[in-house]
Amino acid sequence: MSNKKVTFEDIARYTNFSKTTISRYFNNPDSLTLKNQEIIAQALIDLNYKENKVAKILANGKSEFVGVIVPNLYLHYYSEMLNQILSSYEKFGYKFLVFAGNANEAIERRYIQELLAYNIEGMIMLSHTIPSQELSSYHIPIVTIEREDQYTCSVNTDNYMGGMQAAGLLYKNNCDILIHINVRVSENVPAYGRIKGFVDACTEHDLPYELLLEDLGNTYEANKKVIQQLAENLDKKYKGKRKGLFLANDTYANMMLNCLVRMYGSLPDDYRIIGFDNSPISSEAVIPTSTIGQQIDKIADAAMEILVDQMNERKKRRPLLLNEPIHKVITPVLISRETTKRTP
Amino acid sequence: MSNKKVTFEDIARYTNFSKTTISRYFNNPDSLTLKNQEIIAQALIDLNYKENKVAKILANGKSEFVGVIVPNLYLHYYSEMLNQILSSYEKFGYKFLVFAGNANEAIERRYIQELLAYNIEGMIMLSHTIPSQELSSYHIPIVTIEREDQYTCSVNTDNYMGGMQAAGLLYKNNCDILIHINVRVSENVPAYGRIKGFVDACTEHDLPYELLLEDLGNTYEANKKVIQQLAENLDKKYKGKRKGLFLANDTYANMMLNCLVRMYGSLPDDYRIIGFDNSPISSEAVIPTSTIGQQIDKIADAAMEILVDQMNERKKRRPLLLNEPIHKVITPVLISRETTKRTP
Repeated sequence: MSNKKVTFEDIARYTNFSKTTISRYFNNPDSLTLKNQEIIAQALIDLNYKENKVAKILANGKSEFVGVIVPNLYLHYYSEMLNQILSSYEKFGYKFLVFAGNANEAIERRYIQELLAYNIEGMIMLSHTIPSQELSSYHIPIVTIEREDQYTCSVNTDNYMGGMQAAGLLYKNNCDILIHINVRVSENVPAYGRIKGFVDACTEHDLPYELLLEDLGNTYEANKKVIQQLAENLDKKYKGKRKGLFLANDTYANMMLNCLVRMYGSLPDDYRIIGFDNSPISSEAVIPTSTIGQQIDKIADAAMEILVDQMNERKKRRPLLLNEPIHKVITPVLISRETTKRTP
Repeated sequence: MSNKKVTFEDIARYTNFSKTTISRYFNNPDSLTLKNQEIIAQALIDLNYKENKVAKILANGKSEFVGVIVPNLYLHYYSEMLNQILSSYEKFGYKFLVFAGNANEAIERRYIQELLAYNIEGMIMLSHTIPSQELSSYHIPIVTIEREDQYTCSVNTDNYMGGMQAAGLLYKNNCDILIHINVRVSENVPAYGRIKGFVDACTEHDLPYELLLEDLGNTYEANKKVIQQLAENLDKKYKGKRKGLFLANDTYANMMLNCLVRMYGSLPDDYRIIGFDNSPISSEAVIPTSTIGQQIDKIADAAMEILVDQMNERKKRRPLLLNEPIHKVITPVLISRETTKRTP
């Protein structure tokens, strides 16, 4: 096998087409007949042609690259979202340049500048650090997921409905008091809807409720300590009452469950627990835990659909750019496991 | 601000250097004096020059891209390894094209061919599907992690030492019988060392042991069912004896722990449990679980060091290629939590 590089000239000579025709095959194949496309495709195999994608980017500006920035890969929500985004390769062919920001804003900005220098065609943004107004100034298609999104297209879970679903399930479990445990969430991020949905559902059904919006700390051990203290307080304060606990995510729900199981050897009947996310810990818990499932596959699909539409539009001679950003919400799914029961 | 593209000619005119000098600045900056580098750097800012990385790849062949292929991002081991690899951007500047193979060999091959067409400089391979002999035929630097590695450079955990450490800890807990629960592992993958290390340590200390190498199924629910059955069998078979259980990973260890806590309300004193990996579930378990920690940060660092050395070597006029692959092992760390105790 020869190592000599096969050029457009070699392909032209082999097929008796002009070099212009060969170039058109690579940059605008549909301008050739199907038959001629096949002849050239066969020649590439016969000649053992190695495609140079880099030259192609320079020729037509289409890198087929999409940048993806996640805050971290520690949380299952982000690693699963990334998994679903990457798997769109089979459908769309885009290759993903991936970065985990880990809250280092300066390096994230530098990384984005590099991506732009590589002619990426679009970007999916899960990291929270850079405001959507700044993102929109890059003038490439961008879709954000579950973060502030005033100036960018976005796909988010319907957090409000999730909060309503959680309160509704606890209501059907005949709880005497409903308690939502969360951190203070800013009103302009989608997750704020969980709190609002919970409160509105309680108000609607005229249910007694309590909001515990606490600083839960920044490490796993700190979270655990605060939640242990909350568990002991609630156990005393609402003795004899059936307590319906809605925790902001499955990690917190698992901490609460573990406290109670360690106190009582099992989950007492006067407790009901529901988390949020349907992350693995909810089914791996000592008692499989009810949760509001985010449809991560659907969110990733919707984000790629919006992005691909925008990227395709820019390949047209006269692209029609969006007048205002598209915002899509995906319905969450109530998953009832052993920590809640259907009413008899 | 003008949108006109700034060319090398513009920079040359602005700085009074020749176009050749400007070109050298981008492709071999150290061939210029520091002072001249600074003059050109300032000119780029003044002229609002946007770097075109794509042209640079064509000019010097250096894409600064590294491909990373993981089997999936569901397992914490892979998502955390990816996180650590991505964070090397700050140190080395390489950008990562990431793919999750999800056991689809055909798509993985197609993806790799695409990466090669983009002139990636190297690859880190965690996926198991493609044999190391085939990987070595791509003629680019490749480092594999925790998989078959006969023909490629690799970094692996010292699994043998991990198996020894697990057996040693159970021995110090005065267990009457040591039991290792695992699937049948092929002898040519690094994880086989866990079984061998466990057996050798038991033999050395003259400890009674049992190997349970079972088909544990392919889904979480299937795993859980088999492990529940094993728990019930062991409970009967070794009644009254102190059982030291070493499970192949933390997910299995958590399933075993949950079975026992649900049977007894807590972990009985005649049980000791240790897992492998130090994944989050080991500390999030209802009783924080002892484990053999893989030093994922050190593994990722070592893999990048080997890869960067090889990639730099190829940039020399006369690269010295390796005569045979480098294999590096990283020591695991014994993490003793509540499911084992120090002997009195």
